Amino acid sequence: METLFDPGLDLALERMIEAPPRALWACWTRPDLMEQWFCPVPWKMTDIDLDLRPGGHFRGVIRGPGGEAMPNVGCYLDVLPERRLVWTDALAGGYRPKPEPFMTGIITFEPAPGGTLYRAMVLHADAEARAKHEAMGFHDGWGKATDQLAALARRL
Amino acid sequence: METLFDPGLDLALERMIEAPPRALWACWTRPDLMEQWFCPVPWKMTDIDLDLRPGGHFRGVIRGPGGEAMPNVGCYLDVLPERRLVWTDALAGGYRPKPEPFMTGIITFEPAPGGTLYRAMVLHADAEARAKHEAMGFHDGWGKATDQLAALARRL
Repeated sequence: METLFDPGLDLALERMIEAPPRALWACWTRPDLMEQWFCPVPWKMTDIDLDLRPGGHFRGVIRGPGGEAMPNVGCYLDVLPERRLVWTDALAGGYRPKPEPFMTGIITFEPAPGGTLYRAMVLHADAEARAKHEAMGFHDGWGKATDQLAALARRL
Repeated sequence: METLFDPGLDLALERMIEAPPRALWACWTRPDLMEQWFCPVPWKMTDIDLDLRPGGHFRGVIRGPGGEAMPNVGCYLDVLPERRLVWTDALAGGYRPKPEPFMTGIITFEPAPGGTLYRAMVLHADAEARAKHEAMGFHDGWGKATDQLAALARRL
């Protein structure tokens, strides 16, 4: 797969995590584990239903402390167990287009001494979408979620 | 892959073609052949550049008899030689989202006595996009292009 990270369009996060790729992969692919870390508390992802294969759907509901409930729907594109997971919200299950595409996520898990070099790249269509995502709190939000992910993975 | 054809959202074309899947696959994947059939004459696709693998780009320019020139950009999603080809214009190369997604195409080539059962399914996000595509002349346009495809494939 081409990896075309463009700093003018995309956002990224990189972290050394003291847990093996196997544990991080489980956190990304088991609904019971995803619920525990995917959104920064007090937000939470619930009702997670995933079909982990290229063309398979991802569905969940992001719930906020004030009763907010936002559906989150996407499609897996590349599934390489314990190494790489790619999905997009530009498509739904079965590769069906969606009306308002926003991002593609590319997560890689690279074995490293003492754990995993964890990388998340988020691709956008244009600089406006990138700026919107940054203003929505990408760095803080994904940073906190990654803290939660690391803490959970270390306990597995 | 899930194949979720929905008659309220999608469009399809099915044809028995007297040419083997190998020849039809070549017509879909070799730029020099694609140029010869992909648009109904007097329209033509030129400047075709394709990276035939999941996540690879498809680029071309659709040119009309009055000097029209419309770029056509997409991303391959599923590439199963001589059996199935899936791409979408909701993404560009490297799975990057695009601003105005319209369709995903799923082409299947099924060996049959004397040739190939050829199927094209086009998935849309909603009924409005389907109606727009139908009004743009889907049946006539894809029908004529498929006549051109069949004539070319029979000569290979």
